[in-house]
Formats: sequence, C-alpha cells, structure tokens
Amino acid sequence: MNTDAGQRPNLFPDRAIAPRLFAALRAMSFDGLGITREAYGPKETAAHALVRAEAEALGLATATDHAGNLSMTLRGADPALPRLILGSHLDSVRSGGNYDGAAGVLAGLSVVAGLARAGFRPARDITVMAIRSEEAGSWFPVSYVGSRAALGRLPPEALDVPRLDDGRSLAEHMRAEGFDPEAVRAGRVAIEPAEVAAFLELHIEQGPLLDEQAVPVGLVTGIPGSRRYRAARVLGEYNHSGATPRRLRRDAAIAAAELAYRLDAEWARLEAEGHSLVCTFCVLATAPEAGFTMIPGEARFELDMRSESRASVDLLHAALLRLVDEIEAGRGVRFELGAESGSLSSRLDETLQTELATAAEAAGVPYRRMLSGGGHDAAAFAQAGIPAALMFVRNQNGSHNAREAMRIEDFDAACAVIGRWVVGRAG
Amino acid sequence: MNTDAGQRPNLFPDRAIAPRLFAALRAMSFDGLGITREAYGPKETAAHALVRAEAEALGLATATDHAGNLSMTLRGADPALPRLILGSHLDSVRSGGNYDGAAGVLAGLSVVAGLARAGFRPARDITVMAIRSEEAGSWFPVSYVGSRAALGRLPPEALDVPRLDDGRSLAEHMRAEGFDPEAVRAGRVAIEPAEVAAFLELHIEQGPLLDEQAVPVGLVTGIPGSRRYRAARVLGEYNHSGATPRRLRRDAAIAAAELAYRLDAEWARLEAEGHSLVCTFCVLATAPEAGFTMIPGEARFELDMRSESRASVDLLHAALLRLVDEIEAGRGVRFELGAESGSLSSRLDETLQTELATAAEAAGVPYRRMLSGGGHDAAAFAQAGIPAALMFVRNQNGSHNAREAMRIEDFDAACAVIGRWVVGRAG
Repeated sequence: MNTDAGQRPNLFPDRAIAPRLFAALRAMSFDGLGITREAYGPKETAAHALVRAEAEALGLATATDHAGNLSMTLRGADPALPRLILGSHLDSVRSGGNYDGAAGVLAGLSVVAGLARAGFRPARDITVMAIRSEEAGSWFPVSYVGSRAALGRLPPEALDVPRLDDGRSLAEHMRAEGFDPEAVRAGRVAIEPAEVAAFLELHIEQGPLLDEQAVPVGLVTGIPGSRRYRAARVLGEYNHSGATPRRLRRDAAIAAAELAYRLDAEWARLEAEGHSLVCTFCVLATAPEAGFTMIPGEARFELDMRSESRASVDLLHAALLRLVDEIEAGRGVRFELGAESGSLSSRLDETLQTELATAAEAAGVPYRRMLSGGGHDAAAFAQAGIPAALMFVRNQNGSHNAREAMRIEDFDAACAVIGRWVVGRAG
Repeated sequence: MNTDAGQRPNLFPDRAIAPRLFAALRAMSFDGLGITREAYGPKETAAHALVRAEAEALGLATATDHAGNLSMTLRGADPALPRLILGSHLDSVRSGGNYDGAAGVLAGLSVVAGLARAGFRPARDITVMAIRSEEAGSWFPVSYVGSRAALGRLPPEALDVPRLDDGRSLAEHMRAEGFDPEAVRAGRVAIEPAEVAAFLELHIEQGPLLDEQAVPVGLVTGIPGSRRYRAARVLGEYNHSGATPRRLRRDAAIAAAELAYRLDAEWARLEAEGHSLVCTFCVLATAPEAGFTMIPGEARFELDMRSESRASVDLLHAALLRLVDEIEAGRGVRFELGAESGSLSSRLDETLQTELATAAEAAGVPYRRMLSGGGHDAAAFAQAGIPAALMFVRNQNGSHNAREAMRIEDFDAACAVIGRWVVGRAG
C-alpha cells in the first residue's frame, strides 16, 4: 500500500499522533466497562483540552466557539479562500468505544500535522474541528447539537431538552462547561457556509459491511434520516394470569410483541420491494410493576426507524400507525406513542466522492461506495449547503458498545487518502 | 335470601367477625399502595396472631404446627371421627388485595363462631385452618408451601429455594418466624389424610366470570396445573441500530416478541379446538443494558402456562419448543429457557360439590359450577387423597392487585352455604 500524499512525496500524515492520543483518550475516559465521554460533560471537555494542547504544540491556530466546538487551523496563504474542515465529535455513548467520533478528529490532526511538520503552507486554511455533542442516543435526544450550533441552525427549543439521565437541560449543561447557550438560541453563526469549501468527516463504519467484504475504506453516498418514538407506551390492564380468560384480557406485553413482530415483518416486506431502511425496537419491556401470576398492564418501547429515503421511512411509519389501530381494536389496549423525534436524510456531495475515490486509487487503498446506517455531523454541514463528505473506516464488533474495535493500519490507510485529497484541494 | 343454617334455624354464621377482622388485617398490612403480607414474614405472623386471639376468645382449641399453620378447632363429641377442615391462606402478594386468602380463613371462623355461640356441639371436630405461604408468585416460587408441609408432602429441595426478592431460603425464613424447617424436610405429618373427612376452601374468584354473570358463588370442579419458565432469556448481539443491516442482526427483542406473539396465536388455536388453558408472558423485557441506537442483545421473559388438562398444557409446551427452534434458526439468537417449574392439576371431590350445591339451593344462594383459573391450597389436600372442595366468591377488579374488591353480602351468602353444609356434615 502506497501511503505518500500525492505529488509531494514528503507530505505523509503523521502516524505517531493518533496511537498516542487514542491511548490518552482511553485512559481519561475508561469507566470500568467501556468509554464514556458525556456530551457537554467534564470528560468531553477534557478530551477537547487534550486535542487542543496537541494542536498548539503543532503551531495550529486554535479557537473554541460559543457552543464549545474546537477549531485547530493550519493557516493558508490566502485567507479569502474558503477553507477545508476535517472533523468529527469527541463525545461518546455511555460505555461505548474509543474510536466512534475521536477517529475523525485524530485523522484530521494526523493529516495536518504531517503538513505542518513538513513546512507545507496550503493555499487555503485547513481546519481540524472537534465537534461537541453528537451522541444523541445517550445524552440529549437531539441530533448534531455541536455542528448545528456552530452553523447557527440548532432549533432554539433543543436547548430546553433534558439530558436523558439527569433531567437537566442542554442549555444548563452547555453553560456548566463554560459555553453560551443564549448565543446558540439566538442563532449565532461560527461557521459561515460560504466560507467553507468542503467538510470531510472520517468515522468508523459502525456496521460490519466493510469488515465482511475486506475493504478498509468506505465512501458514503448519503446519510439516513429517522423517525423515532423514544418514549412509547402500551396501556392494558393488570389481571390474574390464571383466572382471566383470553377474551377478557388487555395484555400490554402481547400487544407490544404483536406490534414489534408485525412491524418487523413490514420492514422485511419493504426491503423485498427494494426499499432500503432499518427498523429497531431498541427497548421493549413490560413495566417494573409486572410480576409472576399477573397479566402485564403496561409496557414501553423505544422505536428507531431510518432510511435515506423519506418515502421509505414514511411507508414504514404508515404501517406503524395502521398496526397500532388494529392492535388497539383487537386487544383492548391503548398505545401512547409520545413525542416523535428524528432527523432529515442528507445526500453527500458527489464531486467530493469522486475526488476521494481518485485519491484512494492513487494511494492504492481499496474502497467501496456505500450508504451510511447511522447519522453523522456531516449531515448537518450538508443540510447547511456546505459540500460535505463522509469516509468510513472498517471496524469490528459494531459500535456503541465497549467491544468496538478498529485496526490502526486501516485508520492509517484512510488518513493517507485524506492527506492526498487535502493536498490536492488545499494546495 | 334465606341465611338460616339448615334444620337448626339458630345456627347462622356470625356476620360481625369478618368485617371487623378484614378491617384489622387491612390496617396491619397496608403498605401505602395495597396489602402486603409476606409468606413467612412478620406481617403474615401478625395476621395469624390476630386470628388466633379471635379463636381463643371463641373458646376454640388452637395449635400451630411445625410449619406455622394455625388450627382453630371446635371440638366434636366423638374425637375418633374424621374432622372437617375449613381454611385458606393469610399471606398475600406484594401490594395485593385484602381478601385473597384471608376470606377463606374468616369464612371458617364466621361459620364456627356461629356454631360455638349457639352452643352447638358437632359430632366431629371442625377445624378452621390458617395456612402459611400460598402466594408463590411474590415470595418463594413454590406452590402450596404451608399446606404441603402440614401434609408432610413438601419436597425437601423446596426448603432451599431462595425468596424472590431477598435471596434467603425458604428454610431461613421459616426458622426466622419460629418454625422448624428440618421437621418439614423430614416429612413430619401434621394432618393425617385418614383423619380428615373433607377440606373446604372458600376463596375470591380472582377472575371476572361470576361478576359478569351476576352469580355470587362458584363451585369449583378442578384446579389447573401449570408449566412455567420463570427466568427465561434470549441471547442475541448488541449492534448499532442504524448501521447493521437486517440479515446481520441477532435481535433479542424481536425474537422474544415473535415467540410471545406466535405462542399467543397457538393458544388461540388450541382454544378454538376446544382446549381450556391460559398462557401469559408475565414479564417480557429487553435487558437493562438496552438503549437507544442499539439493537437489543438480550431479553428475558417469565412464562406461565396453565390448564386443568395436562394434555392441553403439554400441547402448548410442545408449540413453545418448536417455536424456540424456529426462531433460533431464523434470527440467529439463542434461547435459555432455564428451569421449568409448575404444579399438577387437581380434580375436586364430586360428592362435596353435590352437597354444596344442595346447600346453596336450600339457602337460596345462586351458584354456578366452574373451573378455577388459579391454584389454591385445596389442590394440595386433593393430591394427598383428602376429599377437597373449593368455593369461589364473586369479586371485582381481578386479584393480585391493590384494586381487588369483594362485596360483604356475597361473602355472607357464601358463609350461609358453608354453614348449612357444615351442620349437615358435622352434625
């Protein structure tokens, strides 16, 4: 594998920074089971400080915006030229892995460090960005908090959303870490879309496809949108499990099971018709009051439906509502789906995909084009009208769990592709 | 309604005892939500003391056996004649109702009090029995503990079963309340079947059938047996809910949902073919580790299958095993059903049913013959070869919950039937 960085053979990404910083990040955020860096919490802030110190040692210009996002910039010759941004997030899910998010920040630093140490002066600014609060699954149920705040596009009501575990609002947590939620609420813009030539995010794949196909790098064509119910309930009636005949039952567990099983079958049917989407009951549980010799009177579920195609996810959503009606009528229960949340799907920039494919071929790095399963900060940049790209690195054991893994040689291969592309675009 | 007690018009059940003792029991065991009298716990023991004091005030002979069961006896003229026993249990589920169990003890006391106060001397002993530890659902997952211990028929290994909430064994709890688990283990017999002419248990129905049909009393023809899995698990794999395609999922929640939904459909099919049985997933829940944006890697369930017909419950059990195999193959998960528990079904004495029907007709109390849904101490007596009868009183709002209700006039009507029958059998 050829890891030079294009026409200038000395512009290799720095291969020492990432192993050292991954180890330091792991040491500061291991919770006994996995990695925990809470969004707008002390561990995320510590990770930002670690990366910032490294950038300053490299001579990069650093700045933190009103929402806590960190920019580390290698200045270009012409400050009027729109810049390149390489970045991802530094928060993690609870007891997750070390690479989800951090890999994108360290990839940017590795590439820019190589350029800086070689004395390379790009034509335009190249900014490595460490973004705040991307992991909506564990902390605030809001997508792309830091990136949308930087772009002045976070809806004000998102600031009032309580953190899932402690109930304190996003604004409170933001303020506690020293940032300015009122500026976010007012829509202050830290990143003007017109001043950005391209945003590139490297991220672990989070799924098994690259590993299955023995391909180290994926070029993502689109990021799915989602429709979500994070606090849905089924209400039936508690009764004696021996003495209550079938026709008089209002069993919340069987109603929830019927919904899950039949919606899963709808998903399979839509896939068979050519739709691309996923449907997951992340939680499905009878209430804590349930116990032996009782028919469950209450259950809850958390439902996550995603697709790049709004039409596909809407078809599944329509099936959900139809099944809810049918099961309510058939089983004498009542569903309370609760508030819907979600995000729009995003198409990524085709020109950037072509440029990255060219860089991969030149660097001898195998790649495939693919859809993203999860949402990523790149979606927020794409929605703001910035040409955005997302590159996956092969990983093992999935993500959002402590067994998440990534081989450093795959990471290096991805950095080689990015380094070659950056020199071409920023030189 | 005619409430005299047969040929002797002065032998009415005492109608004042039960309201007073129900109120006292409620006051001593209300937990803020419902009634809690733990099996072999201080509240159950306090209930026994309350009832014992009442019996002694009535001049009954009281005795507590090695397992803590309380006998309160109106002596008959001929101690060689086999006695009658009227009884039920005084423990409750956690946050249950006040009548489940206690109604049968207070019915016996009401009837015997009427006889004692009238100076009636029966030919044979009439014993009111307060039985220990019947509510296997909340405390020890063992059926009919006190009654089987009295009969010398509790399997020794049951003494080592841990209480569901605190993990301490049945033997430890028995000893803590002052009783003798080693005598139970050795099979000591407190009640010799040959010395018992009949056992009669009054119990609230626990289901809605009598209330629906506006009938105050039920004469039970049989008690169901059960096959149970109280700690079953489904093991799959945690993965990212967005990035893992359908074919690579091992989703424990959908596997559990499929089992619950399809086994419920098997139950419906068996019922349509004429089988009488019930099937309940009392608990069905993803593991606490489950969270948003993850595919659940583990779920658990508690399954309760009951029928008076072993053949019917065995058909459902066979369907369970077939579905487990199918779902394991189809979804890449593994089921661990864990230990099976359960009880045998019991047919109740037909002669006693006829006698009780005659007494009900003579007393002008409407009744119907019916199956029992739940298990009851009467099953332990029937299995020991003692002629056993079970009479239901209409109740409201089900049972095993704090809303459980019973009308005192229905209770009085049932006592009138029992009083008439007792005088006929013991006179």
